[in-house]
Amino acid sequence: MNNAVTVFAPASVGNLGPGFDVLGMALSGMGDTLTAAHRSKPGIIIKKITGDNGQLPTEATENTAGIAAQAVLDHLKIKEGMSIILHKDIPGTGLGSSAASAVAGAFAANQLFGAPLPKAALIPFAAIAEEKVSGALFLDNVGPSLMGGVTWNNPFTQEVVSLGYIESALIIIATPDFRVLTKDARSVLPKSVPMSDFIFNMTQASMISWAIAKKDLKHFGRAIQDRMAEPARAPLIKGFDDVKKAALDAGALGCSISGAGSTIFAVADDKTLAENVSEIMKKRFLDHGVKAQTRVTTMDLKGARVVPPA
Amino acid sequence: MNNAVTVFAPASVGNLGPGFDVLGMALSGMGDTLTAAHRSKPGIIIKKITGDNGQLPTEATENTAGIAAQAVLDHLKIKEGMSIILHKDIPGTGLGSSAASAVAGAFAANQLFGAPLPKAALIPFAAIAEEKVSGALFLDNVGPSLMGGVTWNNPFTQEVVSLGYIESALIIIATPDFRVLTKDARSVLPKSVPMSDFIFNMTQASMISWAIAKKDLKHFGRAIQDRMAEPARAPLIKGFDDVKKAALDAGALGCSISGAGSTIFAVADDKTLAENVSEIMKKRFLDHGVKAQTRVTTMDLKGARVVPPA
Repeated sequence: MNNAVTVFAPASVGNLGPGFDVLGMALSGMGDTLTAAHRSKPGIIIKKITGDNGQLPTEATENTAGIAAQAVLDHLKIKEGMSIILHKDIPGTGLGSSAASAVAGAFAANQLFGAPLPKAALIPFAAIAEEKVSGALFLDNVGPSLMGGVTWNNPFTQEVVSLGYIESALIIIATPDFRVLTKDARSVLPKSVPMSDFIFNMTQASMISWAIAKKDLKHFGRAIQDRMAEPARAPLIKGFDDVKKAALDAGALGCSISGAGSTIFAVADDKTLAENVSEIMKKRFLDHGVKAQTRVTTMDLKGARVVPPA
Repeated sequence: MNNAVTVFAPASVGNLGPGFDVLGMALSGMGDTLTAAHRSKPGIIIKKITGDNGQLPTEATENTAGIAAQAVLDHLKIKEGMSIILHKDIPGTGLGSSAASAVAGAFAANQLFGAPLPKAALIPFAAIAEEKVSGALFLDNVGPSLMGGVTWNNPFTQEVVSLGYIESALIIIATPDFRVLTKDARSVLPKSVPMSDFIFNMTQASMISWAIAKKDLKHFGRAIQDRMAEPARAPLIKGFDDVKKAALDAGALGCSISGAGSTIFAVADDKTLAENVSEIMKKRFLDHGVKAQTRVTTMDLKGARVVPPA
């Protein structure tokens, strides 16, 4: 047993274009850093949250970090308590923020008590937390945040598979200065999908998973195409169509909405190109009066891990 | 230039469960053997077709072998003629018979004139022939018959990618003694797909292509699940639901309709198990008054190739 442990869980791109609720990708350089420590009294308390502009609940039963950590402790029949200090470094919505907290909470709880569970076994506890705050069980952010790289999950069985990663993939993230709520983004989705769009998305999702296995960046990037959620959600993101067109015109392999938005992501295979794409996405958002932060990153390869104390 | 060349193009499973129009798998031990020879007069003639019970047109402009061969010769601006002798060894409908002929015709024409085109460049010529006889352009049989293993194609761009193969996969083929016409099987398909089924099929198709890349037979076989075409077409195949259930109960990893049917295929990872599945599928069809041939085979790994003259 450690006295305290600090862990990191990365942000992630849900859906990954055509893979609605199924595919997800962990991102380097952004995520949750969580320090967990033993507490003499039972129960979990969140002592402090930073980096969230005061927006997240510090009540452990309402925060995914606390909920997931408690679920792990309950499963392990640990009666002891745990304190949490959480630092969030995720630039916008649509980047799996609640999942990163859930994963960090579950992973830290397991680590603090000697890591009796293998990493993959933590999925259900993080999932419970995601479900509690979002109202439905999605694993396309929990999967990559825990396992790293690109993950696939079967929403009908909750099986999660690590598909692999492409080290050389450059991911451009553009986060506008407004939020899109997941429930709003869900409410605009169609109840059924025309046959042609059904075939289209299935075709692209099938290519993405193969391309990840083969580390084939061009096929991966070009398969980031979605004719189901993206057209329905694009109107929620001011400037989206123009920003996407600009990214593709500038040479991005693919571009789509990250999760429920408002963040947009693009994929590139060259550093100079990626910087250009980043700049042009920022400018095009500004043409629509939208201030957006952009940055170039890569896939996070490891997922949740122990890190040195801050 | 050879005086004559004999080629083989394998039968194939279109759709491959969830991958409607997109995924296909070549099968060992069944297909078209075609001997092409130079002919002094221009034009293509089909001298003989065997193994088809006299059902196929011997007019070269109506047979996919002749159409595809002519398309290759036209592309190469070859004015010479070519004669064809075709032997079919494909046990039922739904096994890519017209595609095997198209591929054999295109591949043989290219070989007979010194193979100026690489194999993958023959796709469009075989596709033209498929389109002419079926009324629409599908590549999920042409792809595997030409390239071997499992192929993916993008129906919106006609790109074809060889995904790979799993040498150890055992494929059980059950061919009832009745035909299902592709146009009938297409007419029962829905115009749109409920969201849940959209997600389901996308999930499985995404797993199939990854599993092929990773040679992961269990994940491959278990992803052979289709909630779009299969439920619509099952009523066209007497006994289907019972035969499928029997195959899965006996231990098959997956089971679905091959292409438009009437052939059914199942996947297994053990030889004894596969023989049991084969027997039980045959028996269960008989319970419904349907005589079916069954056999256990594997993936064809090579696709179209030159073979010794018969």
